[in-house]
Amino acid sequence: MTRSGHVSLVLGGARSGKSSYSERVAIATGLEKHYVATGRAYDAEMEARIAAHRTDRGEGWETHETPLDLVGTLRSINAPDNVILIDCLTLWITNLMMEDADIDAEGASLLAHLRECSARVILVSNEVGLGIVPENRMAREFRDHAGRLHQRIAAEADEVFFVAAGLPLKMKG
Amino acid sequence: MTRSGHVSLVLGGARSGKSSYSERVAIATGLEKHYVATGRAYDAEMEARIAAHRTDRGEGWETHETPLDLVGTLRSINAPDNVILIDCLTLWITNLMMEDADIDAEGASLLAHLRECSARVILVSNEVGLGIVPENRMAREFRDHAGRLHQRIAAEADEVFFVAAGLPLKMKG
Amino acid sequence: MTRSGHVSLVLGGARSGKSSYSERVAIATGLEKHYVATGRAYDAEMEARIAAHRTDRGEGWETHETPLDLVGTLRSINAPDNVILIDCLTLWITNLMMEDADIDAEGASLLAHLRECSARVILVSNEVGLGIVPENRMAREFRDHAGRLHQRIAAEADEVFFVAAGLPLKMKG
Repeated sequence: MTRSGHVSLVLGGARSGKSSYSERVAIATGLEKHYVATGRAYDAEMEARIAAHRTDRGEGWETHETPLDLVGTLRSINAPDNVILIDCLTLWITNLMMEDADIDAEGASLLAHLRECSARVILVSNEVGLGIVPENRMAREFRDHAGRLHQRIAAEADEVFFVAAGLPLKMKG
Repeated sequence: MTRSGHVSLVLGGARSGKSSYSERVAIATGLEKHYVATGRAYDAEMEARIAAHRTDRGEGWETHETPLDLVGTLRSINAPDNVILIDCLTLWITNLMMEDADIDAEGASLLAHLRECSARVILVSNEVGLGIVPENRMAREFRDHAGRLHQRIAAEADEVFFVAAGLPLKMKG
Repeated sequence: MTRSGHVSLVLGGARSGKSSYSERVAIATGLEKHYVATGRAYDAEMEARIAAHRTDRGEGWETHETPLDLVGTLRSINAPDNVILIDCLTLWITNLMMEDADIDAEGASLLAHLRECSARVILVSNEVGLGIVPENRMAREFRDHAGRLHQRIAAEADEVFFVAAGLPLKMKG
């Protein structure tokens, strides 16, 4: 089965403007806009960050809160008329780690869906591997999971961007 | 009022060569060289880093120590014959945070000046958002302030570079 | 004496795919493949990472475990028929720091060799300077050493790549 959709991966650091850039790309498609929010508000700071993102995003988005079952949500809204913005993969990985999920299997399942989807999909993720090796073991594992997933998605994606200071640099496509 | 000047933003990691690259660009303009140093020597290590930078820079620079009042200094040396190297924005943000200053307002004031300046301005800053989320809350706030300011300046700048291993990658311009 | 060899520097974050990319480049040369492993297995986690790298690499590599005497190893296998993959410079610097070695002198000696070598050399290294300033002084020194060495090698190298999500971005060459 050939994919009729289109997959973009948008990588960037914290406050790099990767979400805003991805939102502009999504709006420019003119398709029905779906926002898949993977973030869980564990505390007030996180809640404030999520609320700020929502305000920045503006009107016209259907939001799907999806901390864990990403593929389930993607399947339920997969259609050629839809653009789906997933923000972000790193929060999804964090949630999976907290549930002791099999992250490689979850990644494989996401990959399989992306290979066949008919929607326009934009995946946003944090690049987290460019600092000093973290002293915390869980942080090192998280870095490994994120890096591996980025590589696997980038290999299949139609386009990959690295965003810094709000400016996109095309790595692929 | 239209700007007659020219604004460059040079981003990079620690020891990426962003300052040396910016100094070479400044020298190549042939204009009067002004160095705006935002760093404050809190301790011996910082003092040594500042001294090393000064030696690397060589002769012919007028230095302006400016931990806080960046726009005041920029106004005082704004002229079409001047090239002004600001090194660096991240230290300026650190100083502002320590003074509990309103960083968004300070950023807006800097932006307003850059839009109207007649000098050649080169702003150097550290990209700090590409590692693991810091456990320290103040570090997370610092990352947010830096990232937001980079985005705002990049949107207005004539040129933006990302420097790694001493090599500039043009992101805009 | 003119260099007949060819030197590439491949920078990237943790789990960026920089080693896999470098291996593919090495294999594509069709030359005799030499792998210079600088990592020391201090603990079980590190041992597992080294073993995983070895499995990923596949057959046909002659491996040279070289935690410290990098130039000695490079000299012993320097020949126009050889491609030498050094993985990685950051682990080498870590080992040198633990031995209280003169890292600037070691870097100068490596540079001198690279300027004259006849082999095809690919140096892999971690970019570690794009996160928040580490609180640990040794980590800050490590960042400085790594950044300085990257700049020096990049200035001499024929090619420099920055790898993210397995995708190479050419910075030089």
